[in-house]
Amino acid sequence: MRILIVGGSGTVGKAAAAELGRRHDIIRAGRSSGDLTVDVMSEASVKAMYAKLGKVDAVVTTVGHVHFGPVATMTPEQFRKGLDDKLMGQVNIVLLGMDHVNDNGSFTLTSGILDRDPVRQGANAAAVNGAIGAFVRGAAIEMPRGIRINAVSPGLLEDSAAKYDGFFPGHEPVSNARVGLAYAKSVDGALTGQVICVG
Amino acid sequence: MRILIVGGSGTVGKAAAAELGRRHDIIRAGRSSGDLTVDVMSEASVKAMYAKLGKVDAVVTTVGHVHFGPVATMTPEQFRKGLDDKLMGQVNIVLLGMDHVNDNGSFTLTSGILDRDPVRQGANAAAVNGAIGAFVRGAAIEMPRGIRINAVSPGLLEDSAAKYDGFFPGHEPVSNARVGLAYAKSVDGALTGQVICVG
Repeated sequence: MRILIVGGSGTVGKAAAAELGRRHDIIRAGRSSGDLTVDVMSEASVKAMYAKLGKVDAVVTTVGHVHFGPVATMTPEQFRKGLDDKLMGQVNIVLLGMDHVNDNGSFTLTSGILDRDPVRQGANAAAVNGAIGAFVRGAAIEMPRGIRINAVSPGLLEDSAAKYDGFFPGHEPVSNARVGLAYAKSVDGALTGQVICVG
Repeated sequence: MRILIVGGSGTVGKAAAAELGRRHDIIRAGRSSGDLTVDVMSEASVKAMYAKLGKVDAVVTTVGHVHFGPVATMTPEQFRKGLDDKLMGQVNIVLLGMDHVNDNGSFTLTSGILDRDPVRQGANAAAVNGAIGAFVRGAAIEMPRGIRINAVSPGLLEDSAAKYDGFFPGHEPVSNARVGLAYAKSVDGALTGQVICVG
């Protein structure tokens, strides 16, 4: 298969690329590095990336930032950051890429553990993750041409555990390899409308 | 209790007001009618409403529109409509109202059935509902001063069934009375971080 990974140079994107790259051709897109550059929050940039890309069999997105901070003092602007970035960024990749995925291809988005196992300061992340999971459930039942859509919801990655020390009490870090397998389950498997949880 | 219902003149808001009004003082806020007027998408308008309101024991929001349409042709602008309106509208009411709810009070938001029981053309509604449910789960664990937060997720209301004829195949309409009870469970009960499903 020919597979686009948007965010292929991040921790999660590398995990997906390592597993999928064992048997597929990977094209990496990123904000400042990769085979193609793209700002997922810009429709024009996403369209330009797809125009250069042509057609693929699968699109994987592993991008997006959210706001971390106490809900008691969170501002609407801060909350909107996660919507604009991690949610709309990935939704843009799907909605604007529909015609660039071959028949029976797939989209795989990335959510995260904080909607099902919340931590302090994670209310925005929870909302964004919940939206992504529900979007794939809702979209899957009416995707055209046999195209499937799933989300991978990884727990805290081992490679990120030190960076977030203290913010995820009791969370058991998951290995990059296990996270990579979840993307294979979505891309190489037959599931659709699923949130594939790792950890 | 003194309870603010934002959207108190809509179908769901009336159901909530009918049940809660049996034993509590209800203040209704709406875009163009009610005891107070508010545009939930405008931070300035929400702040002005709260300034007039003073303090309450509970805030219930039953507002918000989403985009209905096929996912295959949905545009980012259309998708964003639901985020700006039903999601950010209700989030604004929570984030900007934190200091207007008494100790041990509550917020009750409104999501809907389409994230757990999707229909065609409902991908945006699903995403928004999923975000609202996940937001209350994430926020509940760190709300200040004992304030609780839940969401009610009603199925298709009997009073709306004719309007949506054909779009919700096989969905069993729920009565206004049952939906009203779910708001009582949130406001008068002790739950927090829950999505209270009706239908």
